[in-house]
Amino acid sequence: MAQKPGIPKGTRDFNATEVAKRSYIMDVIKEQFQLYGFQPIETPSFENSDTLMGKYGDEGDRLIFKILNSGDYLKKVSNDVYNSKSEHLITPSISEKALRYDLTVPFARYVVQHQNEIEFPFKRYQIQPVWRADRPQKGRFREFYQCDADVVGSTSLFQEVEFVQLYDAVFTALKLDGVVIKINNRKILSGIAEVIGAQDKLIDFTVALDKLDKIGEDKVKEEMRNKGISDDGISKLQPLFYLKGDFIGQIAKLKSILISSEIGRKGIEELEFINTAISDLKLNTAKLQLDVTLARGLNYYTGAIFEVSAPEGVKMGSIGGGGRYDDLTSIFGKPDTSGVGISFGLDRIYLVLEELGLFPEAITETTKVLFINFGEREAMTSLKAVTQLRQAGIKAELFPDAVTSGKQMKKQMTYANRRNIPYVVVVGEEELINQNYSLKNMISGQQKTVTFSMLLKSVS
Amino acid sequence: MAQKPGIPKGTRDFNATEVAKRSYIMDVIKEQFQLYGFQPIETPSFENSDTLMGKYGDEGDRLIFKILNSGDYLKKVSNDVYNSKSEHLITPSISEKALRYDLTVPFARYVVQHQNEIEFPFKRYQIQPVWRADRPQKGRFREFYQCDADVVGSTSLFQEVEFVQLYDAVFTALKLDGVVIKINNRKILSGIAEVIGAQDKLIDFTVALDKLDKIGEDKVKEEMRNKGISDDGISKLQPLFYLKGDFIGQIAKLKSILISSEIGRKGIEELEFINTAISDLKLNTAKLQLDVTLARGLNYYTGAIFEVSAPEGVKMGSIGGGGRYDDLTSIFGKPDTSGVGISFGLDRIYLVLEELGLFPEAITETTKVLFINFGEREAMTSLKAVTQLRQAGIKAELFPDAVTSGKQMKKQMTYANRRNIPYVVVVGEEELINQNYSLKNMISGQQKTVTFSMLLKSVS
Repeated sequence: MAQKPGIPKGTRDFNATEVAKRSYIMDVIKEQFQLYGFQPIETPSFENSDTLMGKYGDEGDRLIFKILNSGDYLKKVSNDVYNSKSEHLITPSISEKALRYDLTVPFARYVVQHQNEIEFPFKRYQIQPVWRADRPQKGRFREFYQCDADVVGSTSLFQEVEFVQLYDAVFTALKLDGVVIKINNRKILSGIAEVIGAQDKLIDFTVALDKLDKIGEDKVKEEMRNKGISDDGISKLQPLFYLKGDFIGQIAKLKSILISSEIGRKGIEELEFINTAISDLKLNTAKLQLDVTLARGLNYYTGAIFEVSAPEGVKMGSIGGGGRYDDLTSIFGKPDTSGVGISFGLDRIYLVLEELGLFPEAITETTKVLFINFGEREAMTSLKAVTQLRQAGIKAELFPDAVTSGKQMKKQMTYANRRNIPYVVVVGEEELINQNYSLKNMISGQQKTVTFSMLLKSVS
Repeated sequence: MAQKPGIPKGTRDFNATEVAKRSYIMDVIKEQFQLYGFQPIETPSFENSDTLMGKYGDEGDRLIFKILNSGDYLKKVSNDVYNSKSEHLITPSISEKALRYDLTVPFARYVVQHQNEIEFPFKRYQIQPVWRADRPQKGRFREFYQCDADVVGSTSLFQEVEFVQLYDAVFTALKLDGVVIKINNRKILSGIAEVIGAQDKLIDFTVALDKLDKIGEDKVKEEMRNKGISDDGISKLQPLFYLKGDFIGQIAKLKSILISSEIGRKGIEELEFINTAISDLKLNTAKLQLDVTLARGLNYYTGAIFEVSAPEGVKMGSIGGGGRYDDLTSIFGKPDTSGVGISFGLDRIYLVLEELGLFPEAITETTKVLFINFGEREAMTSLKAVTQLRQAGIKAELFPDAVTSGKQMKKQMTYANRRNIPYVVVVGEEELINQNYSLKNMISGQQKTVTFSMLLKSVS
């Protein structure tokens, strides 16, 4: 009656090496979050359904994993509802909890619920898994970690400046040089909408403009026309098609385009402030780049928008993103609380570090010394040495089973080899008598007989 | 339309201090796990339902959180099943995944699924949350972490010895002196059952015996009789009622009781081996104690059984437990794979450390230096210093909003106070001119004007 073991699609098991590499990334991010004054919080894996539902649009609602009520859950369903056999009606009666879909809505709920215990501006970070019933595909999972840092309670642009620095600090610490921090501002996009006289065409417009490099100016304009953007509007935006060059050059062109739009000018002012501060503070390895086609989370962000690209030459979607939002907590009863936050894409950063060989070797180091087991008396002596090594902070193991044949000796050596254990110690009859240890370096193949203090020194 | 924010019963939000304290415990446990040669794995939060269902008994099945299928989940339900309106029939049709109930079954599934990539004996640790639809009460939650270490693939008793050492090492590292590691052996319990001629009364027997301290010998015997244990059986066990004293003394008495039981004698032999080895190796702060009333997971364990009690004087259930099981992986198609493991009760250890004031102060240290914000120019200069401090590994913050009144100055000082930030730096007009910093020690109240290098030295 044995079951063939497997896991649900879109989920993953992580082995020791993978856990070590993922922890490495998370630890680096955590350390920088803390240096920047962010404090950790954790929220439950599942929330009350009404906390989550309706916060991510219809598509989001569909992708939220719902948890079946416990016990006689059908008792609560009225006959009318049951007879409808409609998920839409039945789901709320049989499910009152749902798995976290992101960290942002639970954070907003947390801020409102605990507002009297919190010091504002509240700088929090949160590194926890989220779940989405998305169709799994390469690089897209149904369970994955999000790493978020947010500040709520202040509109100061110094926070945007610090987030750019924070991105730079994290990727510098990860030795991932040359990432590009793309920045835009929702107010600039609003300004553009004003100029083309079509607030509702903003997404169509940015989607089309984003293709400029791939399909060229003429095809982009054609797409815009097809989406209903007027020739007059498109002609006003002509300078956008030549918006190459450095930050300051782009800003100058944007100023001429958005001269008539108050909100557009405000967006430019904010971008200039951030760029001037960053130029003055200097980044270590990252580059700040203005990208007016950046339009992520358009319904959500109200000011700065960030997105981070892997270094040139690495094919990978964005490895981080974020922005300024002005009204996150009002859904839970706390209006007028501006916030700004960024997140790191753990899985993609993992793939990039892997591709570029940037994981430090030390992080996947497991046991350092294995003692071969030659029987009870020898093993007891070995275990005393193992205990002392562990107390000195050295990862050490005794093979649990005793060698009773050449084949078993080979098995223990193979165990050491396959687990990449660099030192093997033999305590046999002779070593017992002489109170010493045969130490073999598994990489050089060298073997020597040593006292315990020499052993400790050799493997430290 | 604001919702009153809340979280599902039995779940918890953790604030920064709580996260820091929980991480401290988990980091100590992890460090020791690694010193002992255990490797981390992680498994998905939800498993296929058939991986979990039927593994924890009927009560366990009821307590497993089931996840509703996504999309048009009612389409898969046949009319017959639907019309039954029976949870028992409908649940398997509308839910195919369920939240992890413990770490042991997913571990067994992992071992079988990945057996060709694993080196045996496989020493793994796993620290992840589990979910149970239990009635929440003090100290019992619907979401909580388990911290498990197991070895599968060897029957060597040296592993039991090492687990005793590991418990000692973890609690010593946590400065929790005087924990009692209680040990028993399933084979001794089987031997007792043999002696009283009632294998099926074993649980009744141990439950009754466990009350000896509280209700006295006569009442215990009465309870045993009420449960159908014969007078003859009880009289054979008479020595068990006086099983006080040290390990060796208890062993001697057990030997006389179990002289006729082969399995009982085997259990004694195993206990003696472990006790002799531990006496020889010596524990640091914990005490190993034989407790024949220990009967946890009776249907599950086959050899050693462990349970750890908090130091005397602390009222708390067991803070750890574990044992030897011989056939964990056969349900997934890999028979004859003996294993032994232990776990740590994170939430209870937390409460004990809190009660005894054993959390190191440093772990809850947040930002070390706050720069008051006196306006754009001052803030830019401050942010340069903040950036340099962070690069030197010092947690530093700039208050994002500028002081424009005495009230706001007070607000920033209050922020520093409430967040326990020990140093506040002021860069005002004067400091800008003189290129120095006013540094205030928030604990002593002392204030001095310093250069940057003096500032760095003072707060390092």
